[in-house]
Amino acid sequence: MKYKAYKKDFTYSYAMGSFTVMNLIKSLPHLVEAVFCHEELSPSSLHLLREACKKEAIPLFEGANQEVERVRRKDRELVFAVFQKYQDKLDLEKNHIVLDTPSDMGNLGSIFRSALGFGFYDIAIIGQGADQFHPKTIRASMGALFELRVQRFPSYETYREQIEGEREIFCFMLGSSTELRTLRREKQVPFSLIFGNESAGLDEAYKNRGTPVFIKHSTEIDSLNLGIAASIAMYNFSS
Amino acid sequence: MKYKAYKKDFTYSYAMGSFTVMNLIKSLPHLVEAVFCHEELSPSSLHLLREACKKEAIPLFEGANQEVERVRRKDRELVFAVFQKYQDKLDLEKNHIVLDTPSDMGNLGSIFRSALGFGFYDIAIIGQGADQFHPKTIRASMGALFELRVQRFPSYETYREQIEGEREIFCFMLGSSTELRTLRREKQVPFSLIFGNESAGLDEAYKNRGTPVFIKHSTEIDSLNLGIAASIAMYNFSS
Repeated sequence: MKYKAYKKDFTYSYAMGSFTVMNLIKSLPHLVEAVFCHEELSPSSLHLLREACKKEAIPLFEGANQEVERVRRKDRELVFAVFQKYQDKLDLEKNHIVLDTPSDMGNLGSIFRSALGFGFYDIAIIGQGADQFHPKTIRASMGALFELRVQRFPSYETYREQIEGEREIFCFMLGSSTELRTLRREKQVPFSLIFGNESAGLDEAYKNRGTPVFIKHSTEIDSLNLGIAASIAMYNFSS
Repeated sequence: MKYKAYKKDFTYSYAMGSFTVMNLIKSLPHLVEAVFCHEELSPSSLHLLREACKKEAIPLFEGANQEVERVRRKDRELVFAVFQKYQDKLDLEKNHIVLDTPSDMGNLGSIFRSALGFGFYDIAIIGQGADQFHPKTIRASMGALFELRVQRFPSYETYREQIEGEREIFCFMLGSSTELRTLRREKQVPFSLIFGNESAGLDEAYKNRGTPVFIKHSTEIDSLNLGIAASIAMYNFSS
C-alpha cells in the first residue's frame, strides 16, 4: 500500500516525528499499522523505535525515504506511524473540556497538550470543527491526543443529554459578569469548561447553560487566542 | 517596485489581512508605504481601508490581484500593507517580558497578542530567534506587534546592563521550587518575566539571575507550549 498526504476522509492517519510516534506506540499500540523511517533518522531514535516496534510486533520500515517524503510533504519529520482512527467515549464522571466548533488545528492540538498537562482527560467537541486526527493537530498536541478521550457530539444538547449526575458548567464568554479569578466553585461535583469558536466565541444561548465566566484582558485586543484562553482556564481550575 | 514573498533580510515587511493592516495604519501610519487589495476584498473592508489610507496619505492599490497573490503565497488574505521595519526601545521603568531565543513565529506572535491583552507593552528578545517582523509572526499577533515596544539584545547581560532602577526578576524554569500561584511579590517595583526557548527552556545560569518559578503541570507532558506558558504567567501577574 502506498501512503499519501493525509486527507480527512481516510480511515487512518499519521503520527509524525519520533516523540509523537513513541507516544502513540506507548498509548495505543494495537492501532498502529506500521512505522516508516527516513535514513537520516538519528541512530538513537532508530534504536528506540526498533525496540518499541519489536515489543508490540509493529512492522518497521527503515530507509523508507520515499514514503516519508511523500507523507510529510513540507515538514522535516524523519519518521511517521500509520494508525487506525478510533472512536472514544468520555468518562461521564470526570471533568470535561467542551469545545464548540474549534476551527484551528494548531489550537485544538495545543488544548490537548495543556489538557493532559493540567489533568483533564476528557474532551468533547461539539459540531463540526477541526479534525482531531489531522497530523497537524496531532503534532501541535505533541501526541497528547493519544492519552485523552475525545468524543464528538452533533450539538450541545446531545452532549448534555449524556450527563446524568450533578455537574457545574462554566461557559467562557465575553461580557460575562464573573471573572475567572473571582470565581468560587460551589460544589464538589464534576465540572465542564466550555469554549467557543475562534472567531465567533460562544453563542448567547450558552448564557443559560451554565455560569458565564470571562478572562479579564484589555480592550486593546479583541480576544485571546483560543488555545491560550482554554489553557489559562484549565490552569486556574487545576490544583 | 515588485513585491515578493517576504525574506528576513528585507528592510520592509508585510502586514496581511484587513484587521492587521488597519491596526498597522492606526499605530504606525508613517511607516506604511502602500496598501494592496485583491478585487475579491469585501466592499465594507475596502471602504474602511480607503478612508484610513486617505486620512494618512498612504497609496492604496485596488484590484492588485497579482501583487496580493505573489506576496501572500499560500494564504488567503486579500489585502496587505508594506511597511518599513523599525527599531524600538524598551521603556526601562515598565514591566518587561523577556524571551530568550524564542524559535517559533506562531508562539512569538501569540505572546505579543497576550502581552497587549494583559498590559505588558515592553518585550525584550535575547539572542537570535524568531523574526518579529515576519508576516507569520505579525499575523499570529493579530497586529499587536505594532502597539508594543520590542527590542532585541545580543545577550542577557546586555539587557541587564540597561536596567538602572530596582526590579524583580522571575525566571520560568522547570525544577524551580516556587510555583506561580504561591509566588508573592515582595516589592512594588517593576518586574521582568523571563522565558526560554521552546526546546531548551532557560539555561541553568538563570537560576542566579532572579527568582526561579514554575507553572505546575503533570509529568504526562514534557512542557507547556511556550506561548501558553508565557500567557498563563502574564495573566497571573496582571490585575
